[in-house]
Amino acid sequence: MNTLEIRKQNSPLLQDVLKLMYIIRDIHNSASLLGWDQETYMPTGSVNARASQLVTLETIAHRLLTSKKARILAEKIEQYNGGSNSFEKGIYRTFLKEYNLAVKLPQKFVEKFTKARTYAIESWKKARQMNDYNIFEKDFDYLTKLKIEQANYYGFSENPYDALIDLYEPGMTYSFLLPYFEEIKEETRNILDDALRVSSLINDKFLYDYYDNDIQFTMARQICEKMGFDFYYGRLDKSIHPFTTSFSRKDVRLTVRVIERDLRSSIFSAIHEAGHGLYEQNISHEYYRTFLEEGSSYGIHESQSLLWEKIIARTLEFSNWFLPILKEYFPSLLKNVTSIDFFKAINKISKSFMRTEADELTYNLHIIMRFEIENDLLNQKIRVRDIPEIWNQKFYDYFSLRPVSLREGCLQDIHWAQGSFGYFPTYTLGKIYSAMIWKKLQEDIPDVLNNIENGNFILIKNWLRENIHQYGKLYEPQVLMKMITGKNFDVGDYNQYIRKKISMLSI
Amino acid sequence: MNTLEIRKQNSPLLQDVLKLMYIIRDIHNSASLLGWDQETYMPTGSVNARASQLVTLETIAHRLLTSKKARILAEKIEQYNGGSNSFEKGIYRTFLKEYNLAVKLPQKFVEKFTKARTYAIESWKKARQMNDYNIFEKDFDYLTKLKIEQANYYGFSENPYDALIDLYEPGMTYSFLLPYFEEIKEETRNILDDALRVSSLINDKFLYDYYDNDIQFTMARQICEKMGFDFYYGRLDKSIHPFTTSFSRKDVRLTVRVIERDLRSSIFSAIHEAGHGLYEQNISHEYYRTFLEEGSSYGIHESQSLLWEKIIARTLEFSNWFLPILKEYFPSLLKNVTSIDFFKAINKISKSFMRTEADELTYNLHIIMRFEIENDLLNQKIRVRDIPEIWNQKFYDYFSLRPVSLREGCLQDIHWAQGSFGYFPTYTLGKIYSAMIWKKLQEDIPDVLNNIENGNFILIKNWLRENIHQYGKLYEPQVLMKMITGKNFDVGDYNQYIRKKISMLSI
Repeated sequence: MNTLEIRKQNSPLLQDVLKLMYIIRDIHNSASLLGWDQETYMPTGSVNARASQLVTLETIAHRLLTSKKARILAEKIEQYNGGSNSFEKGIYRTFLKEYNLAVKLPQKFVEKFTKARTYAIESWKKARQMNDYNIFEKDFDYLTKLKIEQANYYGFSENPYDALIDLYEPGMTYSFLLPYFEEIKEETRNILDDALRVSSLINDKFLYDYYDNDIQFTMARQICEKMGFDFYYGRLDKSIHPFTTSFSRKDVRLTVRVIERDLRSSIFSAIHEAGHGLYEQNISHEYYRTFLEEGSSYGIHESQSLLWEKIIARTLEFSNWFLPILKEYFPSLLKNVTSIDFFKAINKISKSFMRTEADELTYNLHIIMRFEIENDLLNQKIRVRDIPEIWNQKFYDYFSLRPVSLREGCLQDIHWAQGSFGYFPTYTLGKIYSAMIWKKLQEDIPDVLNNIENGNFILIKNWLRENIHQYGKLYEPQVLMKMITGKNFDVGDYNQYIRKKISMLSI
Repeated sequence: MNTLEIRKQNSPLLQDVLKLMYIIRDIHNSASLLGWDQETYMPTGSVNARASQLVTLETIAHRLLTSKKARILAEKIEQYNGGSNSFEKGIYRTFLKEYNLAVKLPQKFVEKFTKARTYAIESWKKARQMNDYNIFEKDFDYLTKLKIEQANYYGFSENPYDALIDLYEPGMTYSFLLPYFEEIKEETRNILDDALRVSSLINDKFLYDYYDNDIQFTMARQICEKMGFDFYYGRLDKSIHPFTTSFSRKDVRLTVRVIERDLRSSIFSAIHEAGHGLYEQNISHEYYRTFLEEGSSYGIHESQSLLWEKIIARTLEFSNWFLPILKEYFPSLLKNVTSIDFFKAINKISKSFMRTEADELTYNLHIIMRFEIENDLLNQKIRVRDIPEIWNQKFYDYFSLRPVSLREGCLQDIHWAQGSFGYFPTYTLGKIYSAMIWKKLQEDIPDVLNNIENGNFILIKNWLRENIHQYGKLYEPQVLMKMITGKNFDVGDYNQYIRKKISMLSI
């Protein structure tokens, strides 16, 4: 049954909901392009004009979602209570969710927030460049106040943070996450010393030689292609903070960070973003222009990028396949490196200031400290002005190190400047999900490592499409995870996986 | 008196008009970014999705402009009849103009047209690439029918073409233009043989050597900077058909066409587009986000690009300044070229298939043949399917040459694919205006050639800002031209200018 058939046979209510959804989706997709452009090609001087344009588009979308027409549709859906098939159910569920979120926010607030976010992003960029927190503080403080206001508008039973986490990971709460995060923190601390000791014997100097930026970028593009990312429906650009955005499944855009003296950055940011990109490109055709044309949740999305970046691309088999290709790009620099050298180097555990360059093990500590800071900020236990100090203290507690600059400290991530509180925990959720998914994938494709070693990623790509990607936002994350793995949420697979990986560092 | 003061002291009516105008302008500017992206960076596979997004944005803008609120404002403006200062007058005039154009077009037509245009652009691209008119014909035929429909909606007294020319050059008609165009055609034919004879002695082979694309692009950027184009509020990219677009005076984007074996293309497309760009960047701050934040007309806009590209950059003094700079980029290729060689080479008259690469003299023949074809198409004297044949026949009549491919024939320009009928005559209007403006500029700045020779363009830039750019769309083109030159429209200055230029080719 194709899209047209599904829609024809369905109710006039579905038609009306879809009609409105298409328009709202188009506006959001246009706004996303304005956002992508701001991060990649927009002239610096155009910040205010871009802010106005974004406010206007967001305002129009918000008005449509809170219009009388939308209210009538929402009421009808609630009366009708369901849908005759999973597509219809999914459309109604996501429409109601967006409608309910929108009506809770006053129009004035949306305008204020959209504008404040655009300014905060620019002052963050400047502050980061100048290594000066003062440049960012005022805008950040205002944005934080607005986020608390937003949580209050949405409402919550225990913790304002929950109202914001729910935007990224439906149904997830601080108190649900806390014990799992504590368990991971504990486990990380148990393994860390041993991992560091083994790692100290690993030579990874060759990763930090001079690697030409243009060649790195070409190489990054080839990896994305190899993974199955379709450039007919997408592109790859450079930006400070790598990200993926899409304006439909037919226009998916990845960016990478290329650093001349760190070969890991281009390789793994490309793989990471292509993992996201594959998800977006393989959502079912049926969901085009609807609210279902996106990932189930941020955590599930992150599981797809991390599965590729941290698990698949960091197997010994991947190194066996990939190193010879890499040597074609950089023959003299990598002449004496073996694939075991390469495998160990890219898996070396070492404390780093930057989250995006952290190894698999310590990565979670980066997330958990942000999770704690966010929670304290939103519960007003700490003040925005004290963030640099708090950050450095916490970093010292977890890593016994003090960040040497703000750029490598509390100003390293764009998330807070975007007002994305509640986003960070989805990274560690993504790790937990990815370990659960990897376990199941290995059961279903017993010779998966063999395929990786031959640079054959089509089986993996298809498995992910069949089991995860095609569904888009049709199912909520915990429902989807149960469908994929047959199990409930737990950190056991992750802990098992990470212990095994560390043990391989001494081969 | 600054913007804020002007607006504060003004009527509530002005406030209401501005409020609506800002929103419409933001939507149009967002749509322009989607258009720019489509020409520069958008993945090929995203055509349909982009078409939907553009339809949605155009539809929303159109709805706002034809809303009850807009109607009430338009009625009030008509009662109020004017405004207390030139800003208010300009706002009311441009609002009424856009309102009247919008209410004449049914919503359904706007949707149909926007979609048809997006498809036609893509099929034109493909047809051009494959050199196959069939790929384009159907979309083009449909688009032409829609343009005739559009002219009928707008209404006209003599000729449907007039209704469309008016969109680009307010007040201009086919019958007004015809005698001037005939005069230019006649004059061109009088001079052409002599100009070709002198030109045959000019050696311009060095322009068609191998010039590295990346170096050409860097050089193009430097010229734009030298002319005073501000990259803090703009950028330069590559595209098939060079163009300028802006999303406010603070985000002005130029594109150039770089051709490895034609040095003229990068130099003169950059200068041409930077001429447009300077206009956009120097519109008064007061007009930000209003309908006044654009050029007076397409013809006036073109006069600014042509003044730089065809007049200033083709003086002997410009060659004296520019050639040494060019030699730094391409030392070995240009070693033996003198500035007189360079001056003659870039002014050489020769028949060319491509409008964008035509010399100053024959350029008008390219335009006039398009002007005649457009007029015949819209008056249904000829059929879309016969365009390739008609084009080739007409080209032969004017140039005694037959285009060797469609790419160098009727598929060379994007304009018809965009549905921009009535646009082409503004190029020759631009030439006529630019000669009138150049004459006045030389009277006001007697040592202008001396300044050019020293690479000092600031006096020119300031004169243009003071006399033309700052006013944006405040005045209609003929009113503005009278203000600038003190004279009525005439082709005398142009004919005088072109005869003098041709005479210089034998120095």
